[in-house]
This record gives sequence, structure tokens and C-alpha cells, in this order.
Amino acid sequence: MSVQSNPYAPSPFDLVSNVDNFQLIESTLREGEQFANAFFSTEKKIEIAKALDDFGVDYIELTSPVASEQSRMDCEAICKLGLKAKILTHIRCHMDDAKVAVETGVDGVDVVIGTSQFLRQFSHGKDMNYISKSAVEVIEFVKSKGLEIRFSSEDSFRSDIVDLLNIYKTVSAIGVNRVGIADTVGCANPRQVYDLVRTLKAVVSCDIECHFHDDTGCAIGNAYSALEAGAKLIDVSVLGIGERNGITPLGGLMARMIVAAPEYVKSKYKLHKIRDIENLVAEAVEVNVPFNNPITGFCAFTHKAGIHAKAILANPSTYEILDPQDFGLKRYIHFANRLTGWNAIKSRVEQLNLHLTDDQIKDVTQKIKKIGDVRQLNIEDVDSIIKEFHSDLQ
Amino acid sequence: MSVQSNPYAPSPFDLVSNVDNFQLIESTLREGEQFANAFFSTEKKIEIAKALDDFGVDYIELTSPVASEQSRMDCEAICKLGLKAKILTHIRCHMDDAKVAVETGVDGVDVVIGTSQFLRQFSHGKDMNYISKSAVEVIEFVKSKGLEIRFSSEDSFRSDIVDLLNIYKTVSAIGVNRVGIADTVGCANPRQVYDLVRTLKAVVSCDIECHFHDDTGCAIGNAYSALEAGAKLIDVSVLGIGERNGITPLGGLMARMIVAAPEYVKSKYKLHKIRDIENLVAEAVEVNVPFNNPITGFCAFTHKAGIHAKAILANPSTYEILDPQDFGLKRYIHFANRLTGWNAIKSRVEQLNLHLTDDQIKDVTQKIKKIGDVRQLNIEDVDSIIKEFHSDLQ
Repeated sequence: MSVQSNPYAPSPFDLVSNVDNFQLIESTLREGEQFANAFFSTEKKIEIAKALDDFGVDYIELTSPVASEQSRMDCEAICKLGLKAKILTHIRCHMDDAKVAVETGVDGVDVVIGTSQFLRQFSHGKDMNYISKSAVEVIEFVKSKGLEIRFSSEDSFRSDIVDLLNIYKTVSAIGVNRVGIADTVGCANPRQVYDLVRTLKAVVSCDIECHFHDDTGCAIGNAYSALEAGAKLIDVSVLGIGERNGITPLGGLMARMIVAAPEYVKSKYKLHKIRDIENLVAEAVEVNVPFNNPITGFCAFTHKAGIHAKAILANPSTYEILDPQDFGLKRYIHFANRLTGWNAIKSRVEQLNLHLTDDQIKDVTQKIKKIGDVRQLNIEDVDSIIKEFHSDLQ
Repeated sequence: MSVQSNPYAPSPFDLVSNVDNFQLIESTLREGEQFANAFFSTEKKIEIAKALDDFGVDYIELTSPVASEQSRMDCEAICKLGLKAKILTHIRCHMDDAKVAVETGVDGVDVVIGTSQFLRQFSHGKDMNYISKSAVEVIEFVKSKGLEIRFSSEDSFRSDIVDLLNIYKTVSAIGVNRVGIADTVGCANPRQVYDLVRTLKAVVSCDIECHFHDDTGCAIGNAYSALEAGAKLIDVSVLGIGERNGITPLGGLMARMIVAAPEYVKSKYKLHKIRDIENLVAEAVEVNVPFNNPITGFCAFTHKAGIHAKAILANPSTYEILDPQDFGLKRYIHFANRLTGWNAIKSRVEQLNLHLTDDQIKDVTQKIKKIGDVRQLNIEDVDSIIKEFHSDLQ
């Protein structure tokens, strides 16, 4: 029996999968600005945009120029930077907004309108006929200016499926560049997402973009399922910041995708920059990087239990699906605790350049575990115990 | 067109689904003890076990009594508390461990052994024949003591499917209570999980338990997919703490499940205790609750963009799939920023018990947005602007 080279790569039976052919729409400067703590100065926006561009994101999405006068000026300033990433702005499905957006210098416009019963009743109060008409008007106007145009429904997973497919079919027919599905409230689950994207794939001829909120913890799983079903673009933000507790995080999605499509991800994105980008944004919005953040959480590559440490020392892949080196990070064997095993201690003894037999290492390990039962140990504690044990033997 | 009462409930076509009939195996005191920062004193373990029992978890899993002498004594102490939750301990598939475990007073024993090529080569070095033999020996021994027994493979998603099904079939035939699937390295994705659980469901007659690490951000999505496919029990820990960046978090899974099975979840678990339990554990392991934590993250129920705030004020369900009241929490409309809209300001004006016409509110909103363009605003700032505007009118 041989271990497959990569059992997580897209299945050859998934003909529609874009798992190894996806693009990122980075929305820290739009969705992220809707995060409770976010207030980005022009300089900070430019710094973030440049960092994201350097990382390799395909699109950078900016707050609507209609939101405020400074938002409009910042949008123009970022368009003038000459970044490799295409610049998008995000507007309501309305000609007033569209007219302002096309004058900012953006490469494309992302249009959104609520199609769910909830949003139609409590937000804009329009019916599907009205939505369809304004969509066509806005799309044709933006296209006439030579810009990319995306049409997205909002709260797609609580919208009537027939209404949804109807409007997507209409906008696809008039040549929209992308259609978007948005889980605005964070209610969708992975199999639902797969089914809706798969169905939509059969209805439109353009690319499909997906936007997932993380209220129920599925924003990464949903993004992956969407790509498997044939979606091409995923909306992300740094640390997932956005309305409420946010959307699919850039770093977390990279963790997910590198497992499935390592060559594609490593050749396209500068993964070793993730930590700096997250720190930049975390500082700007005054939050700590979560302790359990994918990749950059302080313990993401820390191995503790004795049984784990033993195997990790023999072959890191035993308990690691991600290689910390791919992200410019290091693994750490946590040996200073009562769950430690003698293999972890043996490795430490070697690091200290001391010489003990296996039986002696097992003895000192028992000593360490006993003290670890009484109190929390740190590395210095364990090193002292080992050194004392070693010198007692001399 | 009517809005379905709950489109996220298990589909009537999913005959195997346990989405509205699942159980929790809470592993903060086992998996969570493998978290880098964890050192739980006996008193802290008892405090956590009581809190989890009060919340309503079905099982509490404890560190192996073989890990250290104190671990064994703590296990006995918790068994003597007389909790409603059943107490489990987690051991290697070995008679030495099993003999110690059955003497602690636990209700059941969770046995685990690595079945992947990686673990067989770099961890225990045993072949499938040996694994199968020791599994049968340990299972029959634990059963002979009248205790519940679970057999789990480790690193199931990198194990040979034929080996896996063979051993699960064997242990099911001799009357194991549960079989476990474990994504030990956090590599699995939701559709893979669905497929494996669904296949396993046809092979065994006992319950299926699942354990998902969160290295690639899918631990909640995978748990949900597993329940859809017929798994019955999910391993969780408070804040997801465990090896590396941990497993499916208790709170996050509750957020996911309340959307799908509100009656079941609300009747079974004391959801308003989640915040206290998370704070208890966060303090014990010296971490902050992540800013974007499901339910309890500081911004989980904060709404910022003007367009969102308007609809939330009309009907909270428009932009909320979770009701903060279910968790003893409150929603917050963030109106002190440049993205604010006049509906949010109108609501604030009413809270301040001032009287302004809609046109006046639109004027003061423009004023607020202008200042919000220049600097970050707080509530006091906005209140002053409104009050000044109001008094200027008098």
C-alpha cells in the first residue's frame, strides 16, 4: 500500500472544480471597513493595499465612493497607485452610485442588491421586477464605460431559488463579468453551498464569486465547497474582519487551499507575508491576532502530548498537514509539561549537547512529569532538571 | 411566496441526518489539556467539569490516567462528583492503559490508535493485524467491566479506506458502543467528511463519533457535515483549545447547530452560560477570547454599515441568523462612524429622547459622516454633535 501523493487535491471526477484555479477578491478595505473597530486613514489604506498587492491578491475591493467624501478620494488615490491587482469598488444597485463609481478610476464595479424576502421587505422595499430592471440598467452603464462589472444578490441563501436563478440568467445574458452569491448573515452550510453553486453553474456562462460571513463558523468550509462546485472567486479579508464577526479570512483560506493545491497556491501567493499583513491590519483595527488563528496563532505549530512529539520528531508530516516553513514560521515541541514523553526530552537533551542513555532519559522524564503534576513548567525548569540529573550522574 | 420557517433544518430527504439529534463529547479536560498554555489544577478541573455539566454536555472526556499520577487522581476525583454527564477517559489501545482506566470510576473508555501509514511508520510501528488484535482485546476487557467503550482510529482521513472499514466492521461486530473518526491533522474538508461518514454508516451498527482539528479552518463545517451524514457525537472543547490550534469549539458548534435545530439545541443546552464558560477557560489558559469568536466575540452582534443598521432596526432577522438573546447577549448598532446612515442616527436620536424631523436627522447625519471622515468617532462624539445640532435649532 502506498500513500497517495496528495489525497486532498481536486478529484479528477470533479470536472467543475476550481480548487486549483481560484482567485481572491480582497475586501479588507471594503468589508473590513465595516468591522466595528475599523477606521483607516488614507495612508493606512494605501499601506494595506500595497501589502495585499505584494502578497498577490487578484482584486482589491474598496468602500463605495458614495459612503463619504473621503471614501471617494481614497478610492481615487488607490486607483492611481498602479498596482498589479485590479481595483474594484462596491456599490448599491443604483445609477446614482454607479455614476460616481465609474469616475473614480477603478477597474471594475461590484454591484449588490438584497433579493431575500427579508431584505426586500425591511431594507430597500423593491420587488424582483424592479431589481431586475435596475440591475440591467446599471450593468449596461458600467459596461459602456469599459469596466468590469459583477452583479451579486445579498442574503442569497434566504432568497427564493427561482427568483435568484432568473435574475442571474438575465444578467449573464447581457454580459456581466461575474455573478456573486453572498451568505450575508452567515447561515449557509457547506453542502448547501455546493448545491447552490453547482446549480448556478449550469445557468450562467460567466464566473461565480462567493462571499461568506462567519457567524456560524463555516466561512472557510463554505468557500472550499463553493470552489469544488465551480465558483472561481472568493471574497476574503485580513483576519476575516467585516460586519459582525466577519467573513472568510485570507490566512485561513490559504491554510485550506495549500493542502488542496500546494503548487498553485505557493507559486501565486507570497505566503511568508501573511504574518506581517495580519499584524499590520490587527494593529490598525486594534485587535490581537486570535490565539488559535490558522497559521499565525501562537500555538498553530506547537506540539505538546508525548505521543505527538515522538512522531513529529521522526517525521513532521505525522501530525502536520501544513509545513510552517511555507509561511516563514517554525514548529515548536512543547516538552515542559506533565504530558511530555521521553522522545521529546531526548530531543531536548541532544539540543543541550548532553549525553544520556535511553534508560537515563526515561528516568529524567519521569522526574519532569512528577514536577509537572505539581506546577506549570517552563523550558528553564526542565533544562535545570536535566542538567542537575546529568551532573548527578558524573 | 412565503419564507420557509426554517430552511436550515435537516432536509426530510436526509434520512440518516443527526443534525437534530446529536450529542457532545466535551474534551476541554483531555484535548484541551494538550493546548500549549494549559495547566489545570485539580480545583480548576473540577470547576470546569461542573460548569460543563451544568451547561448540559452529554460526556466529559478526561486525560489518560496513565499520563501522570496526578492525572489519574484527578480522573478519580471528577468521577466522584456525581455529575449528570457521563465521564470518559482517553487511552492508547493497550491493555496496560485499559487496566488503569477501568479502575478510575469512569463511565466509559475512549480508545484510539493510529491507522494511517504515517502513524504506523513513525509513531507506534504496528501493522493492521496487530492493531485489530489489540483493539479486540481492549474492547472485550473494557466491556467485561460493564463500561462503555469507543474505538477510534487516529488520522482517519490519511488512512487506507479498506483498512479503516475492516477494523470498524470488526469492532462493531464485537459490540463496541461507538466508533470514532478523527481528523488528527486538520486536513479534511466537508464533502470528504460527508462521504466517509456516510460510507461508514453502512458498515457499522453502532454510533459514530467525530473529532476534527482546525488547522485549515473547517472544524465546524466538518462537524456539521458529519452529523448530516449520520454521525451522532461530536468532540468539542471550550474555545476549541487542543493540540496546535485545536478542535471544533463548543461555542462555535452551538452557533452552527442552533440555526439548524433551534428547538433541540435550546431545550438541551444552557446557551446563556457559554460566555461564562469561555471566560473561565480563557482565564485558566491565559488567552483572550478571540475578537471574532462566534457568539461571544466582542463584535459578533455589532452592526455598522448604514444599509445594515437601517434593516436591523426594522427587523433584526434581516442581518442576523443568531438571536443574541438566546445567549444572554445584546445586539449593538455602531452608529459612530463615517459609514453610518440616517436610520441608525434616527434611532440614536430617539434613545436620547430628542425630537428631530427626518430631514433634520439627514442633515445631522451628513455632519457626522463628515467628521467621521477626518477621525475615528466614539458614541460621546456623536451624542455631542446631535445635542449641539438640536440645541442650535431651538
